Amino acid sequence: MLGNFTYHNPTKLYFGEDSLKYLRDELGNYGKNVLLVYGGGSIRKNGLYDEIIAVLKECGKNVTEVPGVMPNPTSDKLIEGVAVARGCKADFILAVGGGSVCDYSKAVSVSVNCNDDPWEKYFIRFEEPDCEIIPVGCVLTMAGTGSEMNGGSVITNHEKKLKIGHVFGDDVMPKFSILNPRYTMTLPKYQMCAGIYDIFNHICEQYFSGEDDNTSDYISEGLMRSLIHSSRIAVKDPQDYEARSNIMWTATWALNTLVSRGKTTDWMVHMLGQAVGAYTDATHGMTLAAVSLPYYRYIMPYGIKKFARFAAEVWGISRDGRSDEQLAEEGLSAMEGWMKEIGLVTDLKTLGATEDMIDGIADATLILDGGYKVLDRDEIVKILKASMG
Amino acid sequence: MLGNFTYHNPTKLYFGEDSLKYLRDELGNYGKNVLLVYGGGSIRKNGLYDEIIAVLKECGKNVTEVPGVMPNPTSDKLIEGVAVARGCKADFILAVGGGSVCDYSKAVSVSVNCNDDPWEKYFIRFEEPDCEIIPVGCVLTMAGTGSEMNGGSVITNHEKKLKIGHVFGDDVMPKFSILNPRYTMTLPKYQMCAGIYDIFNHICEQYFSGEDDNTSDYISEGLMRSLIHSSRIAVKDPQDYEARSNIMWTATWALNTLVSRGKTTDWMVHMLGQAVGAYTDATHGMTLAAVSLPYYRYIMPYGIKKFARFAAEVWGISRDGRSDEQLAEEGLSAMEGWMKEIGLVTDLKTLGATEDMIDGIADATLILDGGYKVLDRDEIVKILKASMG
Repeated sequence: MLGNFTYHNPTKLYFGEDSLKYLRDELGNYGKNVLLVYGGGSIRKNGLYDEIIAVLKECGKNVTEVPGVMPNPTSDKLIEGVAVARGCKADFILAVGGGSVCDYSKAVSVSVNCNDDPWEKYFIRFEEPDCEIIPVGCVLTMAGTGSEMNGGSVITNHEKKLKIGHVFGDDVMPKFSILNPRYTMTLPKYQMCAGIYDIFNHICEQYFSGEDDNTSDYISEGLMRSLIHSSRIAVKDPQDYEARSNIMWTATWALNTLVSRGKTTDWMVHMLGQAVGAYTDATHGMTLAAVSLPYYRYIMPYGIKKFARFAAEVWGISRDGRSDEQLAEEGLSAMEGWMKEIGLVTDLKTLGATEDMIDGIADATLILDGGYKVLDRDEIVKILKASMG
Repeated sequence: MLGNFTYHNPTKLYFGEDSLKYLRDELGNYGKNVLLVYGGGSIRKNGLYDEIIAVLKECGKNVTEVPGVMPNPTSDKLIEGVAVARGCKADFILAVGGGSVCDYSKAVSVSVNCNDDPWEKYFIRFEEPDCEIIPVGCVLTMAGTGSEMNGGSVITNHEKKLKIGHVFGDDVMPKFSILNPRYTMTLPKYQMCAGIYDIFNHICEQYFSGEDDNTSDYISEGLMRSLIHSSRIAVKDPQDYEARSNIMWTATWALNTLVSRGKTTDWMVHMLGQAVGAYTDATHGMTLAAVSLPYYRYIMPYGIKKFARFAAEVWGISRDGRSDEQLAEEGLSAMEGWMKEIGLVTDLKTLGATEDMIDGIADATLILDGGYKVLDRDEIVKILKASMG
């Protein structure tokens, strides 16, 4: 733990089967005009929409809705939401859905009082908000992105073929998030598995960086072990509440800044996956799953000791009589076995990517440092080709 | 993770060698009258006192001091601090020291505007504050108690021979804490080791409860593995910054409510150790070390699966060919070996306890539930006798 850093995460979490009961008290802290943001309407089918509308009415709120937030929220949808929020003079934004809805709500919250083009300001120039931010609260219905307890927001621009994330500060984090594992149980299994891999990869991208001895890595190993254990139960029985609750809690702590303290972090799998997402509109977690093994196998030699530790501490492979190289390879093979076991997509073709897209995807991939190897464009292309399957 | 719970921890942490530079900005958020609370004066020797006074003066604060907070802060000292805080109309309390100074400052913060007797109200009747709370900030000089990021406060009443802790809510948590591992390096080795055991035991008291599958236990195992690893380095070379920084960060996360989420928790080792402390005034961490092995060996049969898991996941003992009973015993033996290796006191005699104190200590021990076995007074006496060595 050699770095200097700050940690501040003020989001209040309500966890469990009875957690929605706290919504009423929380709403009392905010103004009358509520912007209710949600996705494709599954909450209308499972009854959550009616429950939440009832609470909002009881609290005497004026509710204006922004439905139809898509899995990869677009810059056009952002403009639409900002216009609606301005129109109803929103005092508060209630995001009901998964990470996309929460990401989108945060993007709206920093754009309503911003005179600039939000896409250009926040996602191209990566500027910080210099306007009043509308407070956001979240009722989470999918475990994965960690958006419920961080300042992150990922927006896709189809015209520019770019999917870009901006991690805002703690003033953009949700004021509260309601986490009821039952809400995640109506999700299709494919989406549940995509979310599980998103969580796992969030931890990997923070874990596979740095050479120092860092308590964050030990916490990461604990989170990965818990996730692997619970994911195996959840894929067999998606209705196992205990497993789904552990997955939901792990998702929050995998990306709320805790396990990145003192780490440089390496977000290249997300950069690759987001570029794929901009071309294919494939489910986020699956785009990560499809590129991660080729990526990690490529950088493994540059961080061999960490990959060996990953094999021993996360996958329980004995160090006895094994070289770091053997250990590291067996660790990634164990990871591959688990990914196939829980039904993840491990190639880009299945996600709709074609050979002719590779150059464009490579161009759309932001190259970051922080990991064990800074890639050049040729290496990006190599990894994308290896990911085609 | 079967429980329903909330998580909210707004304390802002500044970590690292350069962390004191943030004090100036933080002080800007609070009023002119600052109550500076510290302990035996080691901060005057190592220069920290002068650094902090310089910042306070630059910020134009009116500084009133409460020095001489003892390792086990007393109810009499609390009354004194409250009087001084009232006299100077303190707007803000700056705690500079270890857990005792931070605990004490929190006790003062909830008592200044309280008309009742604070000892009776908070430590006997366990009532919550119903008055304005003076905000507290902390500059930490010892790793152990976790007081820098929680609402806990432990006060000793010598007249009543009671040492009692009250865990207040998030409104009593420090607004910010400055964690510079270098500040912990001037501490005598005995105090460092006592702090290390305090940390380890905090994790144990949350880990050894509950039968369900809970992500908190996986995080706890990661924290314990990191602590064991770093403690072995730190006792050989107390000047190893990396080890001391991991210990400091682990201390904060061991007791800031994270690893107790979804757990019943079992605080009996603290109840026993605090009763010993009220009679002997011995160093807190050492009182825990002296009673913990007899306690855990006594309750082991009631939580055998968890003690077996502790052996395998924390101490790396192979499950192959071992029964849960064997594993559990070997795990506690490994823990005992580590405790001796890092120089902990494992008997009460060495801490100044005598046979004639046992009845009084047993009477002063609050009996709590939440663990694998609720003890009766005879069992308390049995464990105390076994702890005499």
